[in-house]
Amino acid sequence: MRLVKVNRSNEYHELKDLNFNIQLEGDFLTVHTEGDNSKVLPTDTMKNTVYALARQNDIVEIEKFALLMTEHFLSNNPQVSRAVVKITEKIWRRIKVDGKSHPHAFIQCGDEKRTTKIKATREKKIIESGIDDLMVLKTTDSGFVGFIKDPFTTLPEATDRIFATIVRAGWVYTSEEIDFGECWNEARRLLIETFAAHNSLSVQQTLYAMGERVLNERKEISEISLSMPNKHCLPVDLSRFEMDNPNEIFLPIDEPHGLIEATLRRG
Amino acid sequence: MRLVKVNRSNEYHELKDLNFNIQLEGDFLTVHTEGDNSKVLPTDTMKNTVYALARQNDIVEIEKFALLMTEHFLSNNPQVSRAVVKITEKIWRRIKVDGKSHPHAFIQCGDEKRTTKIKATREKKIIESGIDDLMVLKTTDSGFVGFIKDPFTTLPEATDRIFATIVRAGWVYTSEEIDFGECWNEARRLLIETFAAHNSLSVQQTLYAMGERVLNERKEISEISLSMPNKHCLPVDLSRFEMDNPNEIFLPIDEPHGLIEATLRRG
Amino acid sequence: MRLVKVNRSNEYHELKDLNFNIQLEGDFLTVHTEGDNSKVLPTDTMKNTVYALARQNDIVEIEKFALLMTEHFLSNNPQVSRAVVKITEKIWRRIKVDGKSHPHAFIQCGDEKRTTKIKATREKKIIESGIDDLMVLKTTDSGFVGFIKDPFTTLPEATDRIFATIVRAGWVYTSEEIDFGECWNEARRLLIETFAAHNSLSVQQTLYAMGERVLNERKEISEISLSMPNKHCLPVDLSRFEMDNPNEIFLPIDEPHGLIEATLRRG
Amino acid sequence: MRLVKVNRSNEYHELKDLNFNIQLEGDFLTVHTEGDNSKVLPTDTMKNTVYALARQNDIVEIEKFALLMTEHFLSNNPQVSRAVVKITEKIWRRIKVDGKSHPHAFIQCGDEKRTTKIKATREKKIIESGIDDLMVLKTTDSGFVGFIKDPFTTLPEATDRIFATIVRAGWVYTSEEIDFGECWNEARRLLIETFAAHNSLSVQQTLYAMGERVLNERKEISEISLSMPNKHCLPVDLSRFEMDNPNEIFLPIDEPHGLIEATLRRG
Repeated sequence: MRLVKVNRSNEYHELKDLNFNIQLEGDFLTVHTEGDNSKVLPTDTMKNTVYALARQNDIVEIEKFALLMTEHFLSNNPQVSRAVVKITEKIWRRIKVDGKSHPHAFIQCGDEKRTTKIKATREKKIIESGIDDLMVLKTTDSGFVGFIKDPFTTLPEATDRIFATIVRAGWVYTSEEIDFGECWNEARRLLIETFAAHNSLSVQQTLYAMGERVLNERKEISEISLSMPNKHCLPVDLSRFEMDNPNEIFLPIDEPHGLIEATLRRG
Repeated sequence: MRLVKVNRSNEYHELKDLNFNIQLEGDFLTVHTEGDNSKVLPTDTMKNTVYALARQNDIVEIEKFALLMTEHFLSNNPQVSRAVVKITEKIWRRIKVDGKSHPHAFIQCGDEKRTTKIKATREKKIIESGIDDLMVLKTTDSGFVGFIKDPFTTLPEATDRIFATIVRAGWVYTSEEIDFGECWNEARRLLIETFAAHNSLSVQQTLYAMGERVLNERKEISEISLSMPNKHCLPVDLSRFEMDNPNEIFLPIDEPHGLIEATLRRG
Repeated sequence: MRLVKVNRSNEYHELKDLNFNIQLEGDFLTVHTEGDNSKVLPTDTMKNTVYALARQNDIVEIEKFALLMTEHFLSNNPQVSRAVVKITEKIWRRIKVDGKSHPHAFIQCGDEKRTTKIKATREKKIIESGIDDLMVLKTTDSGFVGFIKDPFTTLPEATDRIFATIVRAGWVYTSEEIDFGECWNEARRLLIETFAAHNSLSVQQTLYAMGERVLNERKEISEISLSMPNKHCLPVDLSRFEMDNPNEIFLPIDEPHGLIEATLRRG
Repeated sequence: MRLVKVNRSNEYHELKDLNFNIQLEGDFLTVHTEGDNSKVLPTDTMKNTVYALARQNDIVEIEKFALLMTEHFLSNNPQVSRAVVKITEKIWRRIKVDGKSHPHAFIQCGDEKRTTKIKATREKKIIESGIDDLMVLKTTDSGFVGFIKDPFTTLPEATDRIFATIVRAGWVYTSEEIDFGECWNEARRLLIETFAAHNSLSVQQTLYAMGERVLNERKEISEISLSMPNKHCLPVDLSRFEMDNPNEIFLPIDEPHGLIEATLRRG
């Protein structure tokens, strides 16, 4: 479910454009077997709860608001043993007019999203934050050689290929006492800069280097998962038209793509 | 990746329209840490393998073909410890001309798909089959009352509401020696008929009844998972125009929807 | 905007699942130039109007209801000179239980939709009805040879290829006094049967034959437009694996596709 | 169809990520009526032509390349009387590493696209350029009052509402001798700045102001069309929970939305 919140307390309005996913787990056996709804909190009530909590509380970092939501659901619902709240934030930046940031007009920064997922029981909370739909591409410093050759191999070795992917990242924080905004910005920066600078022997290797960099530099992160589909750009064979193709003309394809995923944990 | 196969050996052509998802697990540590690709089977080769195996083998039941694929990957790749192959089949039926089935012209039966997923190690195979995107709706025999009331509750109790959902089902077979086609058709029939006939006190209860019916009647199935989002159709308040709405005019909404999921196992 | 209407007057409920698109044209100059909203009927009011009219009137054929809607908007809005109402109907059929049609449980028949578009002024109405997203495929009786060869031609001639397309059709009726349901069913049948039976030399030729057949057999139709993207299924080259491909293994692709469109009018 | 072109002639690689749509019109009657394909240039050949022309020519401004493409098709195909080429360019910017633009790593700037459409006959060319999927939002300086009240009106007047839209713009140039890149950037800037600064009485009025501003300031543009769906953000009624909502909590909805469109021409 979606929510837009505007904070108008300053001349420069703050805008939050959020999508919520709420999952409550517990003992719901008789709901299924007997149609006993006395323990069911309807989706509609969850939606209203989001609106009301959003009115009663500031939303600065989505992690804080998601924590507050899990606390609300656990406090008020004894039948619930675990609450999982996921928030996905669309990113808007201020429009510039005459070079200056506008106080209340915004432009959407594409598909990239900031995410958080809190998995909370009454004993323990796991705070995972991340990025979705971050699309990056490099035109060189990427190769793929030395792979298995079998009777069905037709892929040529490539010492210089395009590397395009849509990064999804999720990392686990070691505590609640973190500057979530600063940490998210830094993790994002480290992922993107490592992608750019890495001399890639495979998507797998670059993915690993990106995750390792985040783990090395951000001590408040104990674990990171990365998903990076290989969005292939195939060099077009122009020899049929008596032309060469000096790594210049490519056909981007959606299917098939290798889906590369891994989780790195601090040792 | 997609594949269409046409069997032309009879006057009545057979058509298979399949989508494949292949996942190979094993020891790929040095791929990530050192860029050593010597154990990597490229996506491109997997794609070629599907084409070649599809040429060399009949594809009647997708379960048999997926089993054959996992065997291929495990036999030829010592570095792989587990192969997971998922096949999704789009369903076409023959066009009728003058009331008779046409030998080679087909019409697509919407979004509904037949699926299978084989998870195979060298020791063990798990065969899961199912249905995706089966959209059903009933206009009565569905209510939702007796749920939790809290300060944020606004949903009225409904003794007669529309129940619309998009069923995704997956069930686990007890053996490889099964008539997969007949069993799929029967499981599908049982799910749909139970949905239609059930006097529903909640989506959860109907989901449970559907799964239970399949487990009761098909001994070759040991476990079934169902996912049934509640695609709400809200009665429109026409009192603002001095009209009643005797459960007749509805607004279907996409968001928010309750996502109801459960897995039933033979006890 | 969407609307679901249930008619419960018989034991066998009737279900309509409709999507509306309403466009009002007229003299709206000062709305744009001066911000004068006194002639603007808000989208929200149009939505309410659909609900209220749907409550007050039976909806059997979407054409009749769309006509009624254009009349409503033209009668009540002197500033409007032309009203265009498009209705798209999702098609549901009854679930069968023990071989008998169920009175109130339905299953959706895929993506195919019945459509109508009424363009009405105070003087004249144009009634266009049609089909959207009708996906059909034939495995033989389709070729494509004799096309232009130029320096960039690589497509081989094909005397026997797969022909897959998603038909969108729209036809214009000569009058309001038509059995719209029967005519729609017949036009649909003629399109599909012609697709199946036609020995196709090109998508263009089959499209023409389909439209011609409808014009020849349905005198209440004066004009028909067809859009049929060529959803290519490319034969896979298996010679690299020392296999032949006797027109059996295909790769369906989304892009690029030729988009073939034409309008036929009675001479 | 898609094409990625990389220009590697400098250390700072240039990247073009383009989607093409090609439409050839002419006398194709016998193609339809007789299956005579001798005048048909297959889609596959058009695709190859794009690759070959992209290899043979620099692609700096998409307008220049689209012009060149229409010239190619008209020169080589006497049966074609009109060629329409549309190019849609996805926008990538350089990744910054340590504050400096990276020479060959890029990040995608969301959904926004630069477009051009050339409609060319042997006598005349119309050059239209524009923007697609530019998503903007303002949190104040937007109202909607004074609209028609009828029996189905429930929308309250709003003196301060959220205004969110996805701009699609297309403008016609007066000549081929234009700095297309500079003009596109300026037209885009004028549209966005006017959206931000305008005190909006309706979407229609703001749309008009945006178009008027471009026509006033860019003499090389003779006509501009704008399409701006009203992506409603509805204030949530929190009074049910004994809370106020001081224009702070909103529900963004996809449907229904008013689709506001207009074309402005220099008088």
